[in-house]
Amino acid sequence: MLPVNDTAPPPAPAADRLVEATRELLWERGYTGTSPKAIQQRAGAGQGSMYHHFTGKPDLALAAITRTAEELRALADGLLSGPGTAVERVTAYLRRERDVLRGCPVGRLTQDPEVMADPVLRAPVEQTLGWLRVRLAEVLAEGRANGELPPSVDPSGTAATVVAVLQGGYVLARAAGDTAPFDQAVTGLITLLAPPA
Amino acid sequence: MLPVNDTAPPPAPAADRLVEATRELLWERGYTGTSPKAIQQRAGAGQGSMYHHFTGKPDLALAAITRTAEELRALADGLLSGPGTAVERVTAYLRRERDVLRGCPVGRLTQDPEVMADPVLRAPVEQTLGWLRVRLAEVLAEGRANGELPPSVDPSGTAATVVAVLQGGYVLARAAGDTAPFDQAVTGLITLLAPPA
Repeated sequence: MLPVNDTAPPPAPAADRLVEATRELLWERGYTGTSPKAIQQRAGAGQGSMYHHFTGKPDLALAAITRTAEELRALADGLLSGPGTAVERVTAYLRRERDVLRGCPVGRLTQDPEVMADPVLRAPVEQTLGWLRVRLAEVLAEGRANGELPPSVDPSGTAATVVAVLQGGYVLARAAGDTAPFDQAVTGLITLLAPPA
Repeated sequence: MLPVNDTAPPPAPAADRLVEATRELLWERGYTGTSPKAIQQRAGAGQGSMYHHFTGKPDLALAAITRTAEELRALADGLLSGPGTAVERVTAYLRRERDVLRGCPVGRLTQDPEVMADPVLRAPVEQTLGWLRVRLAEVLAEGRANGELPPSVDPSGTAATVVAVLQGGYVLARAAGDTAPFDQAVTGLITLLAPPA
């Protein structure tokens, strides 16, 4: 007889729990504010387990940042390569559900001096935001080619504007303690990109 | 005979040097990364002098943040209330010289958990970014009323977009280690606001 499937799922392996705990702590407290001890406590893993799987905090942080960056990229690409016109896809990407007051888990790392000073930790941050600008520029170029956007639109420049509005929208929302300025900034950009007829 | 004016200027009073040192350190290292000792060293002031003038690090930080916020506000208002059409004034504000790789000395504080958790330190950050959005909305409303901007432009929404592009442009520049994405994001926005004829 097969075992009945009514028990709790087995706990994730320790290495996985350590990476997940690091992701959460990086988002909440930043790199400098995240201690190895806090990671072990959140993961329910001991110091021996941590150093069995990872050489230390930078190694764990790299695994955490890489996983977060891959998720964000897959999510963005799903929307930008999905159905709809170019403007609809950019709008879907701008409007996707976000945890606005926590900010962007990748973009926030640019404000962490220790992450920016370490070329290994900084690489996935730079690559993810760079990839996003290139992918958005491709979609905006499509929209210009098919007449959705005016010929004056420069795809690379506008792509940088789109990413900046999101990253800056998080800053405004945190300053205000309210998601409204983020939504206003996004709506303002969409109105400029595609003025109502 | 009057004294000849060829000597070095007298040193600034200690209270002033302490505030300036705190401003620099907040910008470079953030609040959490700034110790009272580092402030005293940079200011060339002793611990006794510091606690004679200020109750402690939060009190000094408030003086430093308030002074920075007042400067930014005066600079923005000078450009937004200066000569030129509405679009020219918003463009002048977007294009003003900035220390892009160091980021916005006010906006960066939103990424500092200790500053955001203290209502007294957070207030000048919230007020400065809020004031900027209101002032930009006034100028954009002027531009809409006189036909420079299309009727579809919502002044408040577009004002949030303008501030977000600047704050997010700093994030992109830091991620890339290069000011180019900041300039691209600003140019992209200006092209959307005022398409070349």
